[in-house]
Amino acid sequence: MSRFLSGAAGRLAPYIPGEQPRDQQYVKLNTNESPYPPCPGVRRVLESANAADLRLYPDPDVIALRQAMADCYGLSADQVFAGGGSDEVLGFFFMAFFDRGDKVYYPDITYGFYAVYTQLCGLEGKTIPLREDYSLAPEDYFGLDGNIVIANPNAPTGMAISPAQVELILQNNPQRLVLVDEAYIDFAKDQTCVPLLAKYDNLLVVQTYSKSRALAGMRIGCGLGAPEVIGDLRRIKYSFNPYNLDRLSILIGIAASAARDYLQEITGKIAATRDETKARLEQLGFTVLPSKTNFLFARSPVIGGYELYRRLKEKGVLVRQFEKDRIRDFVRITVGTPEQMDRLIEAIGEL
Amino acid sequence: MSRFLSGAAGRLAPYIPGEQPRDQQYVKLNTNESPYPPCPGVRRVLESANAADLRLYPDPDVIALRQAMADCYGLSADQVFAGGGSDEVLGFFFMAFFDRGDKVYYPDITYGFYAVYTQLCGLEGKTIPLREDYSLAPEDYFGLDGNIVIANPNAPTGMAISPAQVELILQNNPQRLVLVDEAYIDFAKDQTCVPLLAKYDNLLVVQTYSKSRALAGMRIGCGLGAPEVIGDLRRIKYSFNPYNLDRLSILIGIAASAARDYLQEITGKIAATRDETKARLEQLGFTVLPSKTNFLFARSPVIGGYELYRRLKEKGVLVRQFEKDRIRDFVRITVGTPEQMDRLIEAIGEL
Repeated sequence: MSRFLSGAAGRLAPYIPGEQPRDQQYVKLNTNESPYPPCPGVRRVLESANAADLRLYPDPDVIALRQAMADCYGLSADQVFAGGGSDEVLGFFFMAFFDRGDKVYYPDITYGFYAVYTQLCGLEGKTIPLREDYSLAPEDYFGLDGNIVIANPNAPTGMAISPAQVELILQNNPQRLVLVDEAYIDFAKDQTCVPLLAKYDNLLVVQTYSKSRALAGMRIGCGLGAPEVIGDLRRIKYSFNPYNLDRLSILIGIAASAARDYLQEITGKIAATRDETKARLEQLGFTVLPSKTNFLFARSPVIGGYELYRRLKEKGVLVRQFEKDRIRDFVRITVGTPEQMDRLIEAIGEL
Repeated sequence: MSRFLSGAAGRLAPYIPGEQPRDQQYVKLNTNESPYPPCPGVRRVLESANAADLRLYPDPDVIALRQAMADCYGLSADQVFAGGGSDEVLGFFFMAFFDRGDKVYYPDITYGFYAVYTQLCGLEGKTIPLREDYSLAPEDYFGLDGNIVIANPNAPTGMAISPAQVELILQNNPQRLVLVDEAYIDFAKDQTCVPLLAKYDNLLVVQTYSKSRALAGMRIGCGLGAPEVIGDLRRIKYSFNPYNLDRLSILIGIAASAARDYLQEITGKIAATRDETKARLEQLGFTVLPSKTNFLFARSPVIGGYELYRRLKEKGVLVRQFEKDRIRDFVRITVGTPEQMDRLIEAIGEL
């Protein structure tokens, strides 16, 4: 810390991303990246991109990408906000829809960044415990006095609620904005809340191109909501970083938006590998939560979470473990290729 | 505005970027982009980039790019923060070094975004008028009770103060952090304050790859300062958007950092065109401030700023005009190629 750091900034507990080892020695199952490459259109963008064009600013309205995303989701462009990863969209949400001291509600076990944004914006974070079985009960979220953030499917549990359950939360908080973080929704067939946008103006759906579209390296995400809500996010963007997506991210995002068959293909493969791996882990005595994502949240019958993480790392397999009390016995395992899952099961067998 | 917008966000007056027309019909001299392409290494990055790698997150520490920048500036990597354009670095500065209600000082005529960040962070913005001739007098900034932001060279005036003058401001505000925004410094030979970092820990220099390095399209900027100050910026980044630079921006930034001869070549060409264009405008009776940048701030002897902007636009030449009282008679003209400057002078001649 420098002697100039503000009191508020000094009190922050920043997010700690998963390890990003710079060598390639690990079977990397710790940050929920896709084991498959992005769609072929991405390679064509790189081949055809004109370096000279990079001297010009990108379109700050990002209209071409927003239109491509809108086409993909069956929306209009004014219902789409394009962000530098879904994290940036989340950050702008916290900056747009809260005054300092306001309350924000989210589950006790969920994506750790919500608590960081809460601190950053000076809000009062109210956590609602997941039920004993790590499920989210919609009725725990009825009639709240603050906006609501839920990840669906949730992370790191991997468990999902249905759009009908989300709808109950929307109906029971008509004066509150409900953000549904669908980072992993493409691995949960037909569970997206996007169709609810036709009925509810208090819903903001956030998605990312980092997981199912295999573009974590390019930082592309979106917010989907009523045009007025999207306009509010744009207001923050134009007050913070108007050119938030670079020219290549925009072109690559457009290519990925159009590749719906490819998306089906790789998410289908990953879901199949996931379900197979879950069964194999259960045969080894593991408790594995029912996952609708590209990862499994699993507890060994004999060894603690940190110990399992550490010993798997020694064997060249990188998974993620969390320090929170209720989940410290679990590890989160990204679903990789079938071969990577063989390596995982083998490494566990050796322990 | 949606019914969920917060009071604070509703009071923001967002930044308005220069027009980005989507067709190519204009001689575009309004956003200070380079008329020359980025260095040849950028094209090679595009040719050799591996699309499959984009499935993986970028390095959140951005160590390879920070090292390349450090080599370029004669610093160590821990003195370098890499941002998504200099705007993001500025935003993180305002989030790191102020508590709400704190004062921040900057000139009355300068980059308009400082006032936007001031609002966004709930600070008290104190403007210090430039002198009658639009020069910045260092003694106006001595002994202030808040951090200080100056653009050097300043925008949109284009005028610079010397490193010795900046040093006086640093010496006379030992308890305050002084941000020197050097977005245009590569067009002002030997005027950078980077060498002052060896003596002062209360200096943060911000630079961008958008102007002199011809990469506005890729959003690359940096903050250069004491390791503790850089650490504070990283603290905010990890509380807002840890993966703030994508894989291609990182690779392209590394290529551009190494291209020092090319940088000299194109900034030299642009400076020569600038000085020549200034003389031609003066022959036409214009008042032109002494520019150390890649733009000219010029006032017609017979026509107001908005009127000049409007009529040049009709003739296919896009320049920028600002509404502020003290400068409404000026237009800001980006220095383009000699051919583009011929078009400009021709269009002015026709008026």
